[in-house]
Amino acid sequence: MNYRMLAYSIGRIVMVVALTMFLPLGLSLYYGEGIAKAYIVPIAVSLIIGLAATIRPPKNKGFYAREGMVLVGLGWIIISLIGALPFYISRQIPSFIDCFFETVSGFTTTGSTILADVEKLSKSILFWRSFTHWLGGLGVLAFAMAIFASKDTKTTYMMKAEMPGPVIGKISSKWRYSLRILYLIYIVLTVSEIILLMIGRMSLYDSVVHAFSTAGTGGFGIWNNSIEHYGSAYIEYVIAIFMMLFGINFNIYYLIIARKFAQIKANEEIRWYFGIIIVATALITLNIRHIYSGLPEAFRCAFFQVNSIITTTGFASRDMMRDGWPMLSQMIVVMLMFVGACAGSTGGGFKVIRAILLGKTARYAVRKAISPRSVYSIKADGKEVSADVRHGVLAYLTAYLIFMALAILIVSLDNKDFSTTATSVISTMNNIGPMIGPVGNFADFSVLSKIVLSISMLVGRLEIYPILVLFSPYMWRRK
Amino acid sequence: MNYRMLAYSIGRIVMVVALTMFLPLGLSLYYGEGIAKAYIVPIAVSLIIGLAATIRPPKNKGFYAREGMVLVGLGWIIISLIGALPFYISRQIPSFIDCFFETVSGFTTTGSTILADVEKLSKSILFWRSFTHWLGGLGVLAFAMAIFASKDTKTTYMMKAEMPGPVIGKISSKWRYSLRILYLIYIVLTVSEIILLMIGRMSLYDSVVHAFSTAGTGGFGIWNNSIEHYGSAYIEYVIAIFMMLFGINFNIYYLIIARKFAQIKANEEIRWYFGIIIVATALITLNIRHIYSGLPEAFRCAFFQVNSIITTTGFASRDMMRDGWPMLSQMIVVMLMFVGACAGSTGGGFKVIRAILLGKTARYAVRKAISPRSVYSIKADGKEVSADVRHGVLAYLTAYLIFMALAILIVSLDNKDFSTTATSVISTMNNIGPMIGPVGNFADFSVLSKIVLSISMLVGRLEIYPILVLFSPYMWRRK
Repeated sequence: MNYRMLAYSIGRIVMVVALTMFLPLGLSLYYGEGIAKAYIVPIAVSLIIGLAATIRPPKNKGFYAREGMVLVGLGWIIISLIGALPFYISRQIPSFIDCFFETVSGFTTTGSTILADVEKLSKSILFWRSFTHWLGGLGVLAFAMAIFASKDTKTTYMMKAEMPGPVIGKISSKWRYSLRILYLIYIVLTVSEIILLMIGRMSLYDSVVHAFSTAGTGGFGIWNNSIEHYGSAYIEYVIAIFMMLFGINFNIYYLIIARKFAQIKANEEIRWYFGIIIVATALITLNIRHIYSGLPEAFRCAFFQVNSIITTTGFASRDMMRDGWPMLSQMIVVMLMFVGACAGSTGGGFKVIRAILLGKTARYAVRKAISPRSVYSIKADGKEVSADVRHGVLAYLTAYLIFMALAILIVSLDNKDFSTTATSVISTMNNIGPMIGPVGNFADFSVLSKIVLSISMLVGRLEIYPILVLFSPYMWRRK
Repeated sequence: MNYRMLAYSIGRIVMVVALTMFLPLGLSLYYGEGIAKAYIVPIAVSLIIGLAATIRPPKNKGFYAREGMVLVGLGWIIISLIGALPFYISRQIPSFIDCFFETVSGFTTTGSTILADVEKLSKSILFWRSFTHWLGGLGVLAFAMAIFASKDTKTTYMMKAEMPGPVIGKISSKWRYSLRILYLIYIVLTVSEIILLMIGRMSLYDSVVHAFSTAGTGGFGIWNNSIEHYGSAYIEYVIAIFMMLFGINFNIYYLIIARKFAQIKANEEIRWYFGIIIVATALITLNIRHIYSGLPEAFRCAFFQVNSIITTTGFASRDMMRDGWPMLSQMIVVMLMFVGACAGSTGGGFKVIRAILLGKTARYAVRKAISPRSVYSIKADGKEVSADVRHGVLAYLTAYLIFMALAILIVSLDNKDFSTTATSVISTMNNIGPMIGPVGNFADFSVLSKIVLSISMLVGRLEIYPILVLFSPYMWRRK
C-alpha cells in the first residue's frame, strides 16, 4: 500500500470539497442567516488538511487497484465527515451521527433523511444538502480529477472504483478529456432543468435546489411533502422526465453529440430501461386509476413514481401508502428498487445492465438443463459477454445479497416492523431514499442502525467493493 | 423427445402411487369411515392409466436430460392430480384447486395448507396427507425406481432431475443399489422416530403421522396448533432432533455405516449446517428469553423453530407472532428460510452447500477487487470447485430470484399485506409451509394465486429446472 500517495490524493479531494462550500457560504451571507461560521470552519479545516497532505508530491506515484479501492472508500467517508460539519456547527441538526447520516445520504445521492421537518432548515443549509447530491452524482473523485486535471494516467484504477456499472464506458482514451465531456453534459442537463422549472413559475432558488437533487438522482427536497407541495402537473412532468434522463448512461449523450446513432441502436440497456419504465408505468396506471380522478392523473402519478424509483431518486409526488395503492403497485415499486438505473448514469441501484445479464444467465441455465452438452453464449449489445464479466456480475449479486442480509439483521435489533426493517436497508443500499412503512424518516433509528445504514448507502453508491475491502483482513495482511 | 418412453415411465410412477393408496384405504376401512370410494376410484383410474401406458415397453429406450426433466416435471403434476382425488371424492376438501394445492404441498414436503380447521378431516385422510410427505421426501420417482428395480441405466438423468442439491452424491455406481440403501436409512430413521414418540405417550396413529411429516420435512400436522398441542418438552425435543437428522445429507449416514469417518470430517456442508443451527439457536434464545419462563424454555422454543425452518419442515411449537418475538428473531427465521437443509436430504430450500459456495464466491470477488491479477480458487471439502459448478450455482440463484419476483407480483394481485404476499411465495418456494402474517393458512387466496403457489412449491422441490423447462419454448422447438 502506497500510503503517501493515498494521503496525497485524499488531500486533493478534501480541498475540492472545501472549495465547493464557498457556494453555500455566499448564499448564507446573501440571506443574512448569521451562520457563516458553519461553512468557514470546515473550509479552513479542509484547506489545512489538504495543503499539509499535498504540499510535497510523493516520489513513488505507484497507484493500483488496491490503492484505488481504499482511496475511494476512505475518501468518501472523510468528505462525508467534513460535509457534515455545516449541519452540526449551524446547530440545525443537533446530533453528529445524524449530520453524518444526512451527508452520506447526500453524497451517495440516496436522499434518506433523519429530518422529521425539513422546512425548519435555513436556505443555505438546504442548498448545501442538495448540492451534495449534485457533487456525488458523477463521483466526488471524478469531480476532483476534472478540476485538478493532472496528466498522470494512474487515475484509471480510481475511476474504475468510483464509476457505477460493471463495464466502464470510456468515451476517450484520455480520462481527463472524458471527464470534462461528462461534466459538460451534466451541467447542460442541470441548467436545462433549472430553466424549465422556472418556466413553470418555480423560484430560482427552488429550481436550482431541485435540479441539483434531480441531477444526482438524490431526492432531497425542501418541503415535507416533497414535489407534491407544488401541486403542478407541469412541474411533476418536468422532474419525472429529467429523472429519467439522468438515469441514462451518459455515454449515450456523447454518442448523440458524436452522431453515432448505430451504437445507440445497439445498446440493449437503454432499450430495456425504457421498456421497463413503459411496462411498469402502464401496469401501475391501470392498477391505481380508481384511486385518482381518472387515467391522466393516474398516469402522471405512476410515471413520476416509476421514474423516481428506477432512477433511485426518491422524490414523491404522492404518498403511495396514504393514498392506498394496491399491493401489486407497491410490489412493482419494490421490484424497481432492485433494478436501478443504467450503468454510467448518476442513478444508483443494481443497474439495468446487470439485471439483463442475470436474466440471460437464467435463460442460459434453463437451456443447459435441457441440453447439457450444447454450447451457448451470452450476448449483450450483440457482442459475446466474457465468462469473466458474467462471473463478475454474479459474484457482485452474491456480495450484494450477503451484505444486505447482514445489514437487515443488525437493523432488526431496533425492533421496528417487518417492512420498515427490510426496506430501510433495501432503500439505502440502492440509494433510493424513502422506506415503505408507517414512518417516512430515519430519525428514531438507533446510532448503530444509522451507522449500518450509512455504510449501506456507501456500499450501494460505490458498488460494494471499495467499502468491503476496508473490512477485509486480506487487504491489510499482505504488502 | 421420446414420447413413448416418457408415457411408459409416467405410467409406472402412476401405478406406484396407486399402490401406496392401499394404505389409507385399509385405514379408512379399519376406522369405518365409509369413504372407501375416495381411494378405490383413484386406485382404479391410476391402474388403468398405468397399465395402458406400460403394457408394451417402447422399442426406443433413449432417455436423456431432456426427457428426464420433462418426466420429473410432468410426473409430479400428474401424481398431484391423482393424489388430490381422495380429498375431493371424500368431500372433505370441497374445491378441487384446494385439493390440488394441498396434495402438491404434501408431495413437495412443503406443508402449506388451505385448511382453516385441520381437525375436521377424518383419520385416513390425515394419514394420506402426511403420507404424501413421506413419499415425496426422497422423491416419488426414486421410490418408483426403488420398487420397479429395472436394470436399465438410463435412470441417471431422471435421478439428477429429482434429487436435491447441486452435486448428486452417488453412494454406489449402481443407482438401484444406492436407492435401496437410501430407503433403508429412511425407513430406519422413520421407525426410530415412531418408537421414540410412542415412548413419550403419543398414540401409534399420531406417532406414525408425525414421523411421516418429519421424515419428509413436510410439516403437515393433525392439530390446529401443530406440535404445541401436546404441550410436551420431550415430544418437542424428539421432533426437533429428528427434523435436524432428516435435514442431513443421507450420504453421511451411509458413510457412518461404512465407517468412512475421514470423509465425514471433510464434509463442509455438515459443519456449516450444525454451525448455523447453533448460532441461530443461541441468538434467538437470548433474544426471546424475556418472553418465556426462562432460558430452558426459550432454548427449547428457539431450537425447535430453528430446526423447523432450516430443514423447511414448518412444524410449530409456538406461534412466533402471537408470542411477540422481537424483530431480530423474526428476521433470523426469515433468513433461515433462504438457507435450507443439506443437499441430498429430504429438506428443501436453497441448500446449505449452495449458500456456502455463494459466500465463497463473495469472498473471492472482494479479493479479486483488491488484486485483480491474482489467481485464486474456490474450494469445497478441500477440493477445487470447477468453474462449471460455480457458474451453475450462481445461475441457479438467478433463476430462483427471477421466478420468485414474478410469483410475488402475481400473488400481489390478491392485495394482501406486504409480509403475507412476500412470505407466501418465499415459504412455498422453499417448501417450508407457514407464512408470516395475520392469517396462517392459504384458504382465501385466489385460484390464480393457488396455482402460482402450487407451481412455486414444485419449482422449489424439483429445483427449478424440471418445471421451468415445461414453459420453455426452447424445449419444444427443437427435435
